[in-house]
Amino acid sequence: MSEVFRNTVRVRFKHCDAAGIVFYPRYFEMLNDLIEDWFRDALDWPFDAMHGAGHAGVPTAEIACRFVAPSRLGELLTRELRVMQLGRSSFTVRVSFAGPGGDTRLELTQRLVCVDTAAITPQPLPAAVREAMGRYLDASAAQR
Amino acid sequence: MSEVFRNTVRVRFKHCDAAGIVFYPRYFEMLNDLIEDWFRDALDWPFDAMHGAGHAGVPTAEIACRFVAPSRLGELLTRELRVMQLGRSSFTVRVSFAGPGGDTRLELTQRLVCVDTAAITPQPLPAAVREAMGRYLDASAAQR
Amino acid sequence: MSEVFRNTVRVRFKHCDAAGIVFYPRYFEMLNDLIEDWFRDALDWPFDAMHGAGHAGVPTAEIACRFVAPSRLGELLTRELRVMQLGRSSFTVRVSFAGPGGDTRLELTQRLVCVDTAAITPQPLPAAVREAMGRYLDASAAQR
Amino acid sequence: MSEVFRNTVRVRFKHCDAAGIVFYPRYFEMLNDLIEDWFRDALDWPFDAMHGAGHAGVPTAEIACRFVAPSRLGELLTRELRVMQLGRSSFTVRVSFAGPGGDTRLELTQRLVCVDTAAITPQPLPAAVREAMGRYLDASAAQR
Repeated sequence: MSEVFRNTVRVRFKHCDAAGIVFYPRYFEMLNDLIEDWFRDALDWPFDAMHGAGHAGVPTAEIACRFVAPSRLGELLTRELRVMQLGRSSFTVRVSFAGPGGDTRLELTQRLVCVDTAAITPQPLPAAVREAMGRYLDASAAQR
Repeated sequence: MSEVFRNTVRVRFKHCDAAGIVFYPRYFEMLNDLIEDWFRDALDWPFDAMHGAGHAGVPTAEIACRFVAPSRLGELLTRELRVMQLGRSSFTVRVSFAGPGGDTRLELTQRLVCVDTAAITPQPLPAAVREAMGRYLDASAAQR
Repeated sequence: MSEVFRNTVRVRFKHCDAAGIVFYPRYFEMLNDLIEDWFRDALDWPFDAMHGAGHAGVPTAEIACRFVAPSRLGELLTRELRVMQLGRSSFTVRVSFAGPGGDTRLELTQRLVCVDTAAITPQPLPAAVREAMGRYLDASAAQR
Repeated sequence: MSEVFRNTVRVRFKHCDAAGIVFYPRYFEMLNDLIEDWFRDALDWPFDAMHGAGHAGVPTAEIACRFVAPSRLGELLTRELRVMQLGRSSFTVRVSFAGPGGDTRLELTQRLVCVDTAAITPQPLPAAVREAMGRYLDASAAQR
C-alpha cells in the first residue's frame, strides 16, 4: 500500500577516490539528487520552483548513515526512499542504496526541515506536498 | 590530560548553495580534510604515505551528524576532534564545528576502519598510530 | 555523415552557487560525465574497463572554454560532442552545452591523452576505440 | 614593480581520482579559491561582502588551461596570479600552479566579469578594487 520512491544512479569517475571506491561525501550528493528527484517526480514541487517563487528550501537537520560495502566505478546503484515520519515542517526519510546484485551499500535516515530561505527558519510544508509525501509513509513506521 | 585536535576552515564560495549557506555534502569534505590533517599533523601517518607505500586507507563505516545551525560564506569555522573509541582496526571520533562566536554548527560521531586498499578488508592500525590516537581519547568516553 | 554524440543533463541543486547559477567547476564535472558516457555508450570502452583491466586513463591536457550564458537550477541542458583531431594517443573534442531553447551556454575544445595510469605516460588508443572515434570526426575539421 | 599574488594549496584526498592524481575539475575549485583569496587578502573586497551587500559576483567568461604535469596526494602546490588585462567590468588573469620543486603543473588564463547578481549583467568594478587590481598588472602585458 505504502509506496517506495526508487531510481538508479551510475557510479561515475568523479565519485571515486584514490582507492577506486566511492568517496563518501559523494554519496551525500547522490542522496541530495534523490531527494531532488522525489520532489520533482513524485511530489510536484521541483527544487527550482521551491527555491525560486517558493522562497523555500529543505536543509538537512540530522543524518545517520551506515556504509555497508564499497561501490565501484561503473556500477549501477538502486536508491530507495521511504518516509518514516511526517511533521508539519519536518520529515524523516529512510534511504538505502543497493548494488547491481541487490546487496546493500548504505542505509541511512535523514531528517529534513522545510524553511524560509531568507531567514532559514522553519515553515509548514505546503499541504499538497505533505499529502503527496504521505503516500510514501512506511506502514510499520506509522504504527509506532 | 586528553587532547583535542583543533583547526579552522574558511567557508568558501564553492561550499555554498543557492540559499547562500553551506551545502551539507561539503561539510563532509571539510570533515575528511580534518581527519587528513589529524593523520598528517598529529598521528605522523600522512594520507599520501598511508595510501602509497602503506596500501592502506581509512574509509568511513558509520556517521551520525546533527546540523545545528547554518554556516555562511566567509565565516571561519573551528573544527574539534576527540576519540571516543579505539579498537584494533576501527576507531570512532566525535567532531564539532563551531562558528566565529563559538556557537555549534554541527556535531557528529564517525566510525572509520583501517583497511587494506587492495581488498578493502580491515587491517590493524599501525602500533605507533594507534598509540598516538590514544592521546586524543576522551576521558569520559574511556570510562564507559 | 559524421556523427554527433549528444545527451542531456539536468542542472541540479549541487551544481548551483550562491548566485543561483551553475558554479563553473561543476560544468567540468558535467563535461567529464559526457566523455565517460561517450566511452561507454559509443566507443565500447567504459571507464571501469579502461581504468581496471586496461590500466589506462584519459586525462585532459588542454581545455579552452567560453561561458556564453548562465544556467539555472532545474534546466535541462543538451550536450554535444564532435571530434576535431584524432592522433595516435591524443584526441581533441569540441563540446557545446545548450539550454532548453537551444541557446548556447558554453563552448569548449578539450584535448585528452590516453595514458598508462601507472606511469602517467602516453600510450596508443586501442585500435577499435580509435576507429569508433573516427565516426565522430567533424568533416570540416578533417579537411583542415 | 608589478606584484604577483601567491599562496599555496595542499593536494587533498578529495582532489584525487582513481588514478591517484588531481581530478581536473578540482583544479578549478582550487583556482576559484585563489581568486577568492585575492579578493579578500589583496583587493579588500571579500566574497561575502561582494555577494552580500554588494549584490555582485565575478563569474568566469573564458578560461584556457594547459595541464602540464599531474599532481599527487599530499603535494604542496604554489599558485601565482598576475593581471593581464583590466577593463571597466572585466579582467583577465594569468595563473600558474607549480609543484614542490617549482615545476609547472598547469598554466591558464581566465577572464572574469563583474556582474549584478540579480540580473547577471555586467557592472563596473568598484574604483578601489580596480585600482588595487592594477598593482598586479603584468608589465609586459600592459605594454601590448
